[in-house]
Amino acid sequence: MQGKFISFEGPDGAGKTSVLKEISSKLSAQLGAKLMVTREPGGNAISESIRRIILDKANTQMDARTEALLYAAARRQHLVEQIIPALKAGRVVLCDRYVDSSLAYQGAGREIGAEAVWQMNQFATDGLEPALTIYLDIEPELGIQRIKQHRQNEINRLDVEQLAFHQRVRTEYLELLHQYPDRIKLIDASRPFDDVVTAVQQAITQTYPDLFQLNEE
Amino acid sequence: MQGKFISFEGPDGAGKTSVLKEISSKLSAQLGAKLMVTREPGGNAISESIRRIILDKANTQMDARTEALLYAAARRQHLVEQIIPALKAGRVVLCDRYVDSSLAYQGAGREIGAEAVWQMNQFATDGLEPALTIYLDIEPELGIQRIKQHRQNEINRLDVEQLAFHQRVRTEYLELLHQYPDRIKLIDASRPFDDVVTAVQQAITQTYPDLFQLNEE
Repeated sequence: MQGKFISFEGPDGAGKTSVLKEISSKLSAQLGAKLMVTREPGGNAISESIRRIILDKANTQMDARTEALLYAAARRQHLVEQIIPALKAGRVVLCDRYVDSSLAYQGAGREIGAEAVWQMNQFATDGLEPALTIYLDIEPELGIQRIKQHRQNEINRLDVEQLAFHQRVRTEYLELLHQYPDRIKLIDASRPFDDVVTAVQQAITQTYPDLFQLNEE
Repeated sequence: MQGKFISFEGPDGAGKTSVLKEISSKLSAQLGAKLMVTREPGGNAISESIRRIILDKANTQMDARTEALLYAAARRQHLVEQIIPALKAGRVVLCDRYVDSSLAYQGAGREIGAEAVWQMNQFATDGLEPALTIYLDIEPELGIQRIKQHRQNEINRLDVEQLAFHQRVRTEYLELLHQYPDRIKLIDASRPFDDVVTAVQQAITQTYPDLFQLNEE
């Protein structure tokens, strides 16, 4: 596959969505239709239906492994319908969350174990990994504070976790960084927004020197 | 766990549902409320929602691995909400299909590979297996003929497979029988209904001599 697969990861409140939007806007000028920005469930009908089950506030009985399997099912379909065709067409794919999120949130956060979740996700992805993962790092306390300020009206079943949960999530991300130093690049997301965007742009440029028209390094 | 976990398996058209109904009726006289007869999705809200996605005729784009993950997710929730509590309470659980069905239908039928589907299902079940599996064996040609006679008005997305698919399903069941001779008991389901029921009753009695009040062996 000729395309470039870049994922964005981080705990809640790291500003991932805003950073990704800004980076996409900069890349879009250079790449045009060659750029695809996506996030699970990715807009296909099957993954959207799965996502609705995961986020339904009525499903308080959901077991942690059921949840992990549903995320993996939505991921698989998103991969098959959106990501793989884009990569085959040689496009640059920026994906908001991928397998690392399941390792951090279900594996560590819900304490299923990252190894078991990784193994199960190999079934879903058939081993397809991003070439580069931008990890936006933030202390859980600061992340939660940001979330509370920005999303007061959009609280779903997954937002009601405790601080200890978010600490486990971050610890797993740092563990993954240690395991995959070539793939995952840490960006300190506690800094001002523009600095974070610049750092992300530099990290991408290190791997793909030609992606940005104006290389600010 | 003090209960007894017995699964019923077989290709389409083996008469599994009818046989299970008859066996349940006989066991019910002996066991009363101690008997639980169930099938995935098992009546819980989450598994039912997942099942609706799998069977939706509109979801023609569904990838085989997505389907296998959805079955595993529904299985997990059914296990946690229904089967495990029943086994802990010392009940006898008769379950219409379990992991073997995924190995046969998704692993072999859809050619994902039984080993990969088995591994992924270990995540869903945490290794919990039936103590006894009744496998109702039938030639695919005869099974399909029976299906066509009995279910003309209930054709769903999964019924439209070709003969080669059903042959792969049966071959995998026979392979599983070879792998797990202690757990899986083969019953020739091409014989008259009453003979099949008697043979199933005998197979159960071999493992659990006290289950039937009238041991017909």
